[in-house]
Amino acid sequence: MKNNKVKLGFIGLGVVGGCSVNLLNRNKKIIERKVNASIEIIHLCDASAARLKQYSRQLGHKVKLSSDWQKVVNDPSVDIVIELIGGRDIAKKVIIESLKAGKNVVTANKAVLSENWDEIFSLAMSRGKVVYFEAAVCTGIPVIQALNEGLASNRINRIVGILNGTTNYILTRMFREHISFEDALKQAQKNGFAEMNPYFDIEGIDSTHKLSILSSIAWSCWVKRENIYCEGISKIQPIDIKYAYEEFGYVLKLLGVGKNCNNKLDFFVRPCLISKNHQFASVEDEYNAVLIEGEASGNIIFYGKGAGGDSAASAVVSDIMFLAKEVNMGTAGRVPYVNNSHCETLAFLPAQESAGKYYLRFSALDKPGVLSKISGILAKNNVSIAGVFQKEPVSKNKKAASILMTTHVVREKSIRDAVKEIDALSIIEAKTVLIRIEEMAV
Amino acid sequence: MKNNKVKLGFIGLGVVGGCSVNLLNRNKKIIERKVNASIEIIHLCDASAARLKQYSRQLGHKVKLSSDWQKVVNDPSVDIVIELIGGRDIAKKVIIESLKAGKNVVTANKAVLSENWDEIFSLAMSRGKVVYFEAAVCTGIPVIQALNEGLASNRINRIVGILNGTTNYILTRMFREHISFEDALKQAQKNGFAEMNPYFDIEGIDSTHKLSILSSIAWSCWVKRENIYCEGISKIQPIDIKYAYEEFGYVLKLLGVGKNCNNKLDFFVRPCLISKNHQFASVEDEYNAVLIEGEASGNIIFYGKGAGGDSAASAVVSDIMFLAKEVNMGTAGRVPYVNNSHCETLAFLPAQESAGKYYLRFSALDKPGVLSKISGILAKNNVSIAGVFQKEPVSKNKKAASILMTTHVVREKSIRDAVKEIDALSIIEAKTVLIRIEEMAV
Repeated sequence: MKNNKVKLGFIGLGVVGGCSVNLLNRNKKIIERKVNASIEIIHLCDASAARLKQYSRQLGHKVKLSSDWQKVVNDPSVDIVIELIGGRDIAKKVIIESLKAGKNVVTANKAVLSENWDEIFSLAMSRGKVVYFEAAVCTGIPVIQALNEGLASNRINRIVGILNGTTNYILTRMFREHISFEDALKQAQKNGFAEMNPYFDIEGIDSTHKLSILSSIAWSCWVKRENIYCEGISKIQPIDIKYAYEEFGYVLKLLGVGKNCNNKLDFFVRPCLISKNHQFASVEDEYNAVLIEGEASGNIIFYGKGAGGDSAASAVVSDIMFLAKEVNMGTAGRVPYVNNSHCETLAFLPAQESAGKYYLRFSALDKPGVLSKISGILAKNNVSIAGVFQKEPVSKNKKAASILMTTHVVREKSIRDAVKEIDALSIIEAKTVLIRIEEMAV
Repeated sequence: MKNNKVKLGFIGLGVVGGCSVNLLNRNKKIIERKVNASIEIIHLCDASAARLKQYSRQLGHKVKLSSDWQKVVNDPSVDIVIELIGGRDIAKKVIIESLKAGKNVVTANKAVLSENWDEIFSLAMSRGKVVYFEAAVCTGIPVIQALNEGLASNRINRIVGILNGTTNYILTRMFREHISFEDALKQAQKNGFAEMNPYFDIEGIDSTHKLSILSSIAWSCWVKRENIYCEGISKIQPIDIKYAYEEFGYVLKLLGVGKNCNNKLDFFVRPCLISKNHQFASVEDEYNAVLIEGEASGNIIFYGKGAGGDSAASAVVSDIMFLAKEVNMGTAGRVPYVNNSHCETLAFLPAQESAGKYYLRFSALDKPGVLSKISGILAKNNVSIAGVFQKEPVSKNKKAASILMTTHVVREKSIRDAVKEIDALSIIEAKTVLIRIEEMAV
């Protein structure tokens, strides 16, 4: 019952592209049986002639080779363009021009999708084509599909994700080995878990792109980067990881969080403390996890590797299979994969209005009246204290004491105002550390 | 762009049926937007007139009401039959007759699917219809879809599941409160987590049905109950849960496991010890989890509530939505959802050939030479010891000692033969306890 050949053009044969070609080729027989059509790679494109040679040889059949992506996009035989070149400008052009040329697209490019969501999906809708992008978030974990299909009946109350492998690796090392951020970053770079320029990962930008994509699907509304409060992990000190764990039972993770608070959407990417008993506390190293709280499904957690060529290839090729079925039946794009019609009914909560519990570490002179002054300012700003722990000074010569506190739920603005006022006191020796606590049912 | 109305007939308005009708009705607007078609419940069927009245009133529009399921199946206006009556014989008839009448089907009935897999899906294929069943395994966790679509490109190496909420609740209570199986079962019944007749749950039958379904999809091959070695938890003693945790760092779970061992498929449902550091160790109470090890994706874990009406409704209504899209486009059943063509190439591993590590507890007289005799018999049967711990007798009057051992990987037959020989010794006071250890990368 194989009706047609579905013809693929690959643009970009780096790690993910190469692994995807390999996976398709290796499992060709079972893939075609599942899809009920034959799937053929007919065009490969990469800047490197050596790679083109390598992969065309592996395929073992005749295939067009190009160094110019436009050749693939304008190849009338290609049904599906697989964009895996990374980066921004050219990748965006590849996606846009492919849709204009009547192709369906598979991509793993989170930055381009997150930053051009409306343009890409409006174009796809108007052209009756689809863009699939499972690999863009948490690589091999099928969480995009779950939001779009398996949990489609739910209103989504909350999404919480450990979305970036690099930062999770670094925080795991800081927690396990009591080392500084800088040393943990060096380890991550040495072991291939961080890039030489780690800015986008450690400052939370990558997580923000991924949260933007998940949230745009969950709430049928383009959630832009600028709608998401973003704070990275580069200022985290190991002492807070240690204190929060030992004194209050929390583990520190870089979380991406989206939640519906009385029809206002609250979004942030920031280091958060979570209960050491929650499943997320044991998500370590380069692993990722996403919690989706649906009104009917309750909390569902998806967990797996958040990086790696094979892991991404699993998602890319699964997308190709799903799309190939639809191409073969002539139904691809008949129902939009992404729908933005919900925007008008939901508002964004300003970051200052976001409410939560907090962990605070004050560095104060070891003098009478210090606790009274700090707690007085907190009270004045409506910050209610949940727990206090004062660490005795390490040496007798040191005059500063660490005072740790946790608060009840309070608005971001109130706690920031209080901290600002406290930090201006002469008894305060160093900037107060402020970390959000994210509560999740275990 | 709403082309058609997709018309639903519900058979069975118990907990899951009622919650599904509610969810569909409550989220009608966003559901129809996502599906791009209007979805209407036009026929409700239940044995109870009170329920029919209750749900038809909630719908707020005219709907046919029947106490006879055949009326729904033979209603020419119905596009999709939703079978939620549970049980076996009638439920099977509903599914079969619906397909014969040209309807697509959504069901949550694991027993009927597991026991009639080939008949149901061959009929569906020949009639060009589909049967969707996400709620049949782990209710709201979208794991069927993940196997079928999001991970479709992978060869599956292994599936491990905590698939039954009742037994997981009981084992959690035994672990946390050091109580007997009988007392934990009573607690589960009292708190609504076990039925009055808990046989199917506690003896592993329910888990076997679910493993059968997951495995039949994963390996494109009907895995029947009789292909799955099955052992329940009713003989588990709290002392082994305690010793295994304290002395060896293991937690006891009822696992359903399927794995590909050199192209032979090994299946079992049995109490297993797993590392206390593995994510599964923190899956507690009525929660479920499934680990899928794909060749490319690596280990992916799905976690969530394994029971409850709303949780099941999340899956049932998501199935309805996906199917409604296809019905509306005229493509439902064009590609079979379940494909059994792989059977001929894979063989089943006999249970006696299954290999793993084991935990043993010998109850032996406290006499010289006991350890030598036991270890001699183990060695003769090629059982290699990994760890040993001998608990000192609790009271001086008691002559029996508990000797705990863990083994390296060994065939089931070898360890059974050894235990049989050891249990025949006069120094052995009680039947030796034998529990499989399942190793999973953390």
